[in-house]
Amino acid sequence: MASNQPPDAAQQLPEIIVLGPPSVFRAYDGEFSSRFQVLRPWESQSPLPQFLADRAQSTRAALCSGAFSLSAAILCNLPSLGLIVTTSAGLDHIDLTECRRRGIAVASAGNIFSADVADLAVGLLLDLLRKISTGNRFVRDGLWPRQAEYPLGVKVGGKRVGIVGLGSIGVEVAKRLEAFGCAISYYSRKKKPLVSYAFYPDIYALALNSDVLVLCCALTEQTHHMINREVMVALGKDGVIVNIARGAVIDEKELVCCLQQGEIAAAGLDVFENEPRVPNELYELDSVVLSPHAAVFTEESFTELYQLMAGNLEAFFSNRPLLSPIPDE
Amino acid sequence: MASNQPPDAAQQLPEIIVLGPPSVFRAYDGEFSSRFQVLRPWESQSPLPQFLADRAQSTRAALCSGAFSLSAAILCNLPSLGLIVTTSAGLDHIDLTECRRRGIAVASAGNIFSADVADLAVGLLLDLLRKISTGNRFVRDGLWPRQAEYPLGVKVGGKRVGIVGLGSIGVEVAKRLEAFGCAISYYSRKKKPLVSYAFYPDIYALALNSDVLVLCCALTEQTHHMINREVMVALGKDGVIVNIARGAVIDEKELVCCLQQGEIAAAGLDVFENEPRVPNELYELDSVVLSPHAAVFTEESFTELYQLMAGNLEAFFSNRPLLSPIPDE
Repeated sequence: MASNQPPDAAQQLPEIIVLGPPSVFRAYDGEFSSRFQVLRPWESQSPLPQFLADRAQSTRAALCSGAFSLSAAILCNLPSLGLIVTTSAGLDHIDLTECRRRGIAVASAGNIFSADVADLAVGLLLDLLRKISTGNRFVRDGLWPRQAEYPLGVKVGGKRVGIVGLGSIGVEVAKRLEAFGCAISYYSRKKKPLVSYAFYPDIYALALNSDVLVLCCALTEQTHHMINREVMVALGKDGVIVNIARGAVIDEKELVCCLQQGEIAAAGLDVFENEPRVPNELYELDSVVLSPHAAVFTEESFTELYQLMAGNLEAFFSNRPLLSPIPDE
Repeated sequence: MASNQPPDAAQQLPEIIVLGPPSVFRAYDGEFSSRFQVLRPWESQSPLPQFLADRAQSTRAALCSGAFSLSAAILCNLPSLGLIVTTSAGLDHIDLTECRRRGIAVASAGNIFSADVADLAVGLLLDLLRKISTGNRFVRDGLWPRQAEYPLGVKVGGKRVGIVGLGSIGVEVAKRLEAFGCAISYYSRKKKPLVSYAFYPDIYALALNSDVLVLCCALTEQTHHMINREVMVALGKDGVIVNIARGAVIDEKELVCCLQQGEIAAAGLDVFENEPRVPNELYELDSVVLSPHAAVFTEESFTELYQLMAGNLEAFFSNRPLLSPIPDE
């Protein structure tokens, strides 16, 4: 095993380039470095294209974060690349067409985050319906002894929850919310044959028949700004949106307007269109809970992610099948 | 029906005294007043004993909040009382021994809040494990763009959750947390015959074998300060406590110490020993989520509660069985 080799064998360790770098790399830098020779462009004075031209012409594998844009232009500077391992479940930051053209394999975090992401989605929804963050502020601001009456929340049971994108995350959200007595339906490109939840092939119709929308879909050309003003108005004045997918699935400017004007009631957002920038108008609203794209950030998932990422890289260098290759389109 | 009588029939409506007054009375004052002639001691200049002596000597029914102490001394001033209807599920504010001695029937909110209380318990737990309130503050304080790294949360799945008191609320909490993949066990006076969760007859042993304690028991002499320092130390440094029962089930001073000293990791508290007063030390801790005894406060439950309270009162005045009498001890 590479990890058992003495430090002076570092030159013989397989070389990888780390792009981003992902949080899991920062947390497991020592472990990665004991198994791979790591190129660290963010520590270099050179601009990235120069660094790649000087140092990475023979580099065969890259580890990248979900926030790092692996465009055709960047890929062009990595002529020997045969593998990209991304720490995200989403793939919208990678030019997959270019990868296919160049024969670059891609491995992702697969489904290991699904439970964690679903947990946060449900947590955000409970917070909004039951005013948990609002209550926390109310008590911490010392208002409880002065204002006897606290605004009522809304019951979770019986709410009609529309899951947008019933992949592995959506299924986990549905499973949890069923235990609270919610009525589940979903929007998806295709009806899922093994699922008994009500299926809506039209996002507008789903919104019209839901109290809550939980966005769990991938960001693609088709889902970009899919949640537009029309969909939000259909959801209605008591409607609640939870987004743990990608910021750009919602038209964020319209979301801000709809919240400000009371066209929808509340939103729980783990993702934003221009992270880490959040529209300032949201800070002023009591009806939103904001989360710093933290749905996958648990100690347990980080350990599991490190093992999966390193396992994919080692499989590639020893010509074994990848552990979590992305599915063929 | 009394509610269909014209206003000048108010003298013929059955008389009740409202004590507290409960929030649901404030919300449904008009509806209660159309069905009952309401004595309102809080609107009088007289101290309560004087008001009772002057006005309530023939009053046969009382509607009271869970925060109003119906002691033997108060009951002594209500010589004609035959029924107390309390808007709470808990009964620790009523001198039940004196009620039995005097033949006063008691009706409560029964189980109508169980789902709502369980929802808040799970919401508080998700908030603590996944740092939702902390994340909300982090984003709202504008820290996200400046501090790339956000502290990791803890996975919900796989956590060993000890339910303290497996009544109707505890069962609802367990059902929800099972859907998240938690392992459920419980402490109770007696083993529940129809339940497969692991049973601990000893609270200390439950704490020793749990990552999380969710307190769902009634406050009685036996449960007062049951969660003491020893139990918290047994729960351990990564341990999390959620209390949606009554504040005094925990020794609150010791809880503050244990949180400050890191003897336990976090606490989600909807109830406190001296509500609405909250220990100031808790305001300074990031590891607590504070809620203003709001577990039952949903719009839907208030409607249901109004109907149940008014229904109990009408049943009493028409000699029908109460809708939600408290069980015999």
